[in-house]
Amino acid sequence: MTTAIIGTGNMGAGLARALVASGEAVALGARDPAKATALAAELGALAEGGGIAAAVALADVVVLALPYGAHAETLKLAGNLQGKVIVDISNPVTADFQGLAIGHTTSAAEELQALVPGAKVVKAFNTIFAGLLGAEGRKGKVLQVFVAGDDAGAKAAVSKIATAIGFEAVEAGPLSNSRFLEPVGEMNIQFGFFLGKGPVVAPAWISV
Amino acid sequence: MTTAIIGTGNMGAGLARALVASGEAVALGARDPAKATALAAELGALAEGGGIAAAVALADVVVLALPYGAHAETLKLAGNLQGKVIVDISNPVTADFQGLAIGHTTSAAEELQALVPGAKVVKAFNTIFAGLLGAEGRKGKVLQVFVAGDDAGAKAAVSKIATAIGFEAVEAGPLSNSRFLEPVGEMNIQFGFFLGKGPVVAPAWISV
Repeated sequence: MTTAIIGTGNMGAGLARALVASGEAVALGARDPAKATALAAELGALAEGGGIAAAVALADVVVLALPYGAHAETLKLAGNLQGKVIVDISNPVTADFQGLAIGHTTSAAEELQALVPGAKVVKAFNTIFAGLLGAEGRKGKVLQVFVAGDDAGAKAAVSKIATAIGFEAVEAGPLSNSRFLEPVGEMNIQFGFFLGKGPVVAPAWISV
Repeated sequence: MTTAIIGTGNMGAGLARALVASGEAVALGARDPAKATALAAELGALAEGGGIAAAVALADVVVLALPYGAHAETLKLAGNLQGKVIVDISNPVTADFQGLAIGHTTSAAEELQALVPGAKVVKAFNTIFAGLLGAEGRKGKVLQVFVAGDDAGAKAAVSKIATAIGFEAVEAGPLSNSRFLEPVGEMNIQFGFFLGKGPVVAPAWISV
């Protein structure tokens, strides 16, 4: 199974690297196809790179590794998304990263779903700093990835990807729970960037 | 140092019990003073109980162990709150506990602060289920309590209380971070009540 990853920034490259390291194939797509091609060349035989629609066409699961603000414009370049699982890893942060631009009655994930009604949006990875996507960055620790969405099959597919790269996938309810998970992501940014812990923390729900 | 606890429900009684078990004095207050008196009698010599203003007058730190919706009316019965540290443990949940009634641009803690401008509101304990307040309920595990507020001294006082009863107090930034911590509390309710984990979970920020 090939996973499409749209975006070659820290999160996109980190996820691609982790998937390839786990023996999974990735199709990288970027607005500038040369960037995706170059990253694919670096990652080796399990990766290919090019334009956004080309990557989307190769996969059932498409990770949007983009800032929230880039979703709408990027989707216009994505071709047919009908039936695709789209993974939203974003937090709709304000420009200073200190707050969220939207919330409470909506979420980035729900706004994305409204843009692509024929696709199945799944929220995941929004509480994981890019540097912790690879096993070496996590020092082998198993971190939790919270998986929210309205389609059980789509969530299972995303959970499988999270598990493949060494995370614990945690069922987090319907997509509307992104209204809570995105503030969890922002609190993670607060701890990592503004409260001195550094981008080496992650939230976990622990059972007594 | 005596801690005032307003409210004799699960959270108020649980906090009072944990404090007394750790050798701390508590002054319990309730709209029905007989309830506070009865709980105090059960807790022994370190506890006293009565009306709300009487409990408030005995302590520098006042825990409002009440639902968010009861804050405004209860404060009218609290007497002089000038300079007091007021601990807001609430999540402003909707009637079905599935969502939050307010958020994003405000929080229960900030609304409370607006009601009592001369007091120092601190957010804490909103991610801890009542059954986990006592050491035996936690099976000895050290859980994290996120402490947010705008006054460093007030946060230190609340952190001291959290530590006294066996929690790790985690500095969580300004009171406005309650906009993120209350959704963390709601996500905790989602996991505990609606996603099958039971009210024996708590969020923690772990460092790699």
